[in-house]
Amino acid sequence: MAMCSQSHLQTISIPPPSTLFLSKPSFSSVSLRSHGFKCNNSLLSKHLETEPEPVLTSVKTFAPATIANLGPGFDFLGCAVDGLGDFVSLRVDPDVRPGEIEISSINGIGDSASKLSKDPLLNCAGIGAMSAMKMLGIRSVGLSLSLDKGLPLGSGLGSSAASAAAAVVAVNEIFGRKLSDLDLVLAGLESEAVVSGYHADNIAPAIMGGFVLIRCYEPMDLIRLSFPIDKELFFVLVIPEFKTPTKKMRAVLPTEIEMSHFIWNCSQAGALVASVMQGNWRRFGLALSSDKIVEPKRAPLIPGMEAVKKAAIDAGAFGCTIGGAGPTVVAVTDDEEKGKEIGYRMVDGFINKGGLKAYAMIQRVDRVGARVVS
Amino acid sequence: MAMCSQSHLQTISIPPPSTLFLSKPSFSSVSLRSHGFKCNNSLLSKHLETEPEPVLTSVKTFAPATIANLGPGFDFLGCAVDGLGDFVSLRVDPDVRPGEIEISSINGIGDSASKLSKDPLLNCAGIGAMSAMKMLGIRSVGLSLSLDKGLPLGSGLGSSAASAAAAVVAVNEIFGRKLSDLDLVLAGLESEAVVSGYHADNIAPAIMGGFVLIRCYEPMDLIRLSFPIDKELFFVLVIPEFKTPTKKMRAVLPTEIEMSHFIWNCSQAGALVASVMQGNWRRFGLALSSDKIVEPKRAPLIPGMEAVKKAAIDAGAFGCTIGGAGPTVVAVTDDEEKGKEIGYRMVDGFINKGGLKAYAMIQRVDRVGARVVS
Repeated sequence: MAMCSQSHLQTISIPPPSTLFLSKPSFSSVSLRSHGFKCNNSLLSKHLETEPEPVLTSVKTFAPATIANLGPGFDFLGCAVDGLGDFVSLRVDPDVRPGEIEISSINGIGDSASKLSKDPLLNCAGIGAMSAMKMLGIRSVGLSLSLDKGLPLGSGLGSSAASAAAAVVAVNEIFGRKLSDLDLVLAGLESEAVVSGYHADNIAPAIMGGFVLIRCYEPMDLIRLSFPIDKELFFVLVIPEFKTPTKKMRAVLPTEIEMSHFIWNCSQAGALVASVMQGNWRRFGLALSSDKIVEPKRAPLIPGMEAVKKAAIDAGAFGCTIGGAGPTVVAVTDDEEKGKEIGYRMVDGFINKGGLKAYAMIQRVDRVGARVVS
Repeated sequence: MAMCSQSHLQTISIPPPSTLFLSKPSFSSVSLRSHGFKCNNSLLSKHLETEPEPVLTSVKTFAPATIANLGPGFDFLGCAVDGLGDFVSLRVDPDVRPGEIEISSINGIGDSASKLSKDPLLNCAGIGAMSAMKMLGIRSVGLSLSLDKGLPLGSGLGSSAASAAAAVVAVNEIFGRKLSDLDLVLAGLESEAVVSGYHADNIAPAIMGGFVLIRCYEPMDLIRLSFPIDKELFFVLVIPEFKTPTKKMRAVLPTEIEMSHFIWNCSQAGALVASVMQGNWRRFGLALSSDKIVEPKRAPLIPGMEAVKKAAIDAGAFGCTIGGAGPTVVAVTDDEEKGKEIGYRMVDGFINKGGLKAYAMIQRVDRVGARVVS
């Protein structure tokens, strides 16, 4: 549970709605990654006739971890992971100035609490919550927010997106669910833009659950990929004690791609989508493992990666690749017990070939996405 | 119906099965297109215990037209088109040397009959039939084949694949359906390799029907993309009087692709697959229309193409692109009547902006693929 610590509160103003609704939102011009997409986000100018009133005085939400850059799904396909994620507790707070938000406490695993700012402008949950409040035109109610980090920072598991997703869903719940999933993704994306770049492949599955494909940013077009209810997929997530700064992992990407690799990766991207929708996890693994463009450049930056991938496949994983921008390595299987064996072997691979301590987890796909927990 | 003309028969020997089964097939080393895939086709060494006997004395088959290079599905996604295609009549012929095949007649629209060779080694249907016979180990029965071309040559509608598909299915029917769809595609692919390059994006849908994704060539991995039975898609096919030699259309392809375009096209490829499987034709059209790599290079080689595409979209088409390597232009809609209007406007576009005569057809997806007709 989040702890309240009023002495550390910092506030941020929400501008009056006239500013919000008559002009393009300020974050329409966020700088894009070199290979990102332009977006004018006209959907953020949501025009509610009246300012909604709170329907709850407090709410606690959860948003799951996510894996983006799923092999050939680089930069457009992400998936939510069950059992890991962040919690946000949000409450109507008469001590907070109307239209403003405060971060009262941050708790969590590892060094996350000490490394994150309580300035809502510099905190994923704060920016996300603020963005959702702007979208709703909230100017008469102040909110205070507590963040419980269940995800390590910089692991490649969508830590920033989980915080933002939990926050935007919490705001929406407090004010009676006026925002659609698409609105919530756009609100959360404002946070991602500040923290890690204008990309929706973590925030969209963190909010919507399951696999989500981002077809277009302008206008935003998201495709939820459903898969058969009786076909369970398990991710084997192996997290080494190692840092892979996103900036460094982006710097090694090629600027130009040869035609044969382009065609190959496009066909694997299509196969990845088809095999999700068919629940064909064996083929999903084959496609996941076969990226010829991004993984070959990034893998050498993670000590032992090649051996870890080989260990996963040798132990029966259907496929294996880097999660997000690393260092988490993700393998897939349809059998939880086999997943444990795969995990042991991968951890051994990191120790023996990479000289890195690592730990493994076996997790299902989260089919639900961000939700209320109390 | 095909006409028999024995005086023009040419023959080709089928080598004894020991040669076939103990070594790699000779076409395992066919030259690949510059951006193609390596393949050793071990599946072609199909080992039947005994030579199958004919179960029919004659059969007539049909195989549909196909559209490959579906926008961002370049080189790995094709679709079969209803109501257009080639017919093959095949019969057990005691006048043909056992283990051999003869082409007795070729008929068809336009200049197809006069332009095609009756040498089975140089004819798509002949090579396909021979390949299927090799795969089955046929050495005691001779066959004669008549080909009825319903498809114009070089239109971008998979003319060579339709002939090969009809032929391989006919051979399989005569000998009791020992070959699977995958075998049939591999047999037909030998024909495609000789005629237009080692690619399966026409032959696979010509045999299997519907949309087929080619994930891998070694080993061959094909994915049939089913779509909801109640969601009908119509192709508006507009064929101008103009030639776009495949070689010329390949020469303009870029050798290197920038990262942003690569990511964009991969996401559209994924969206294309998802929207087929969801029967979301509006989104399918958006993805189809949005290729940033191949179409922009090829469109300028087809006079009026830009205006024709604009006319299609203005008339309500969900999307529009070049079919195959052109010159056929394909638009999509879910309404047959609207399809006619779209077709008129596209034909006008070719006349007014390209100075080309053209004709239009509205066709459904063929969900069945190559089949017996009598």
